[in-house]
Amino acid sequence: MRRVRYNVAASLDGYIAGPDGEFDWIPSDPTVDFAALFAKVDTVLLGRRSFELTQRTGAPWGPGTRVHVFSRTLRPEDHPGVAIVAEDGGAVVGALRAEPGDGEIWLFGGGELFRSLLAAGQVDTVEVTIVPILLGGGVPLLPPDAPRTALALEGTHTYPSGMVRLSYAVQRDD
Amino acid sequence: MRRVRYNVAASLDGYIAGPDGEFDWIPSDPTVDFAALFAKVDTVLLGRRSFELTQRTGAPWGPGTRVHVFSRTLRPEDHPGVAIVAEDGGAVVGALRAEPGDGEIWLFGGGELFRSLLAAGQVDTVEVTIVPILLGGGVPLLPPDAPRTALALEGTHTYPSGMVRLSYAVQRDD
Repeated sequence: MRRVRYNVAASLDGYIAGPDGEFDWIPSDPTVDFAALFAKVDTVLLGRRSFELTQRTGAPWGPGTRVHVFSRTLRPEDHPGVAIVAEDGGAVVGALRAEPGDGEIWLFGGGELFRSLLAAGQVDTVEVTIVPILLGGGVPLLPPDAPRTALALEGTHTYPSGMVRLSYAVQRDD
Repeated sequence: MRRVRYNVAASLDGYIAGPDGEFDWIPSDPTVDFAALFAKVDTVLLGRRSFELTQRTGAPWGPGTRVHVFSRTLRPEDHPGVAIVAEDGGAVVGALRAEPGDGEIWLFGGGELFRSLLAAGQVDTVEVTIVPILLGGGVPLLPPDAPRTALALEGTHTYPSGMVRLSYAVQRDD
């Protein structure tokens, strides 16, 4: 089974972006080894707003990566090179997870896509790098009305910038 | 200057209590050394709802501790043994911090009191023990519309139960 990893940076008060979508509060820490973190990632999942953001700012994944954008409004013909998933997101991700191989699937965000895939039982790990800041508002890591979900701590890593990465496995009943 | 410490347990998605105020999601971890953590605490600050909660469940602090409850509705004559702070909370806490000695002040909660004292520049450390769970709703660690506040990581501690305590100093301009 290929793993779906929700890997994000968040403020201590649980926001993954500021009130206006800003990321200026995330320090640039040269010791974060993105290449190692995402070495096995061959597929990226993201919501419409996150997709539009990466179109403006540039995407952090490599050119050969498969990209699935979850949106009911985007038209596939406008976005060649990415797969637009308009419905049955859980089933689509379930099929991706069941593909052969050990490639990993990066759930890039945002929080609403995380919530829906969590409810569908399609998230394997939650990896949050906590930035030493209180934002006081913004885009939540997980919006309200998500299912209560037990986690198991798999590891922690403290960066020189004061960021702390916390890695968890989602505990499922199945 | 005596320190004001916001010390709470929170879910990974940033709630300090469940939607109905419940704490059943916080594991009982015998390795948490509360006596050492709060050895220097001689004063406790808490909001009205947190106060009423500790009246039902019992308070975790010792009998000699000074207790200040921040409320515009409670009547002091109904609550002998605690100080009711109805206004100028920031000034009251500023005076407590300026008292001689090295006794510490535990800001027990909730999030709204934290927000107001943070805005007033009267919080010195933020110590969050992150419980390995996503609650999906509840009482926020810090409610929306709080001031953006930089923190400096002071330490981390991982408990056998998978809880991780993250300790920060509030970075102030003054």
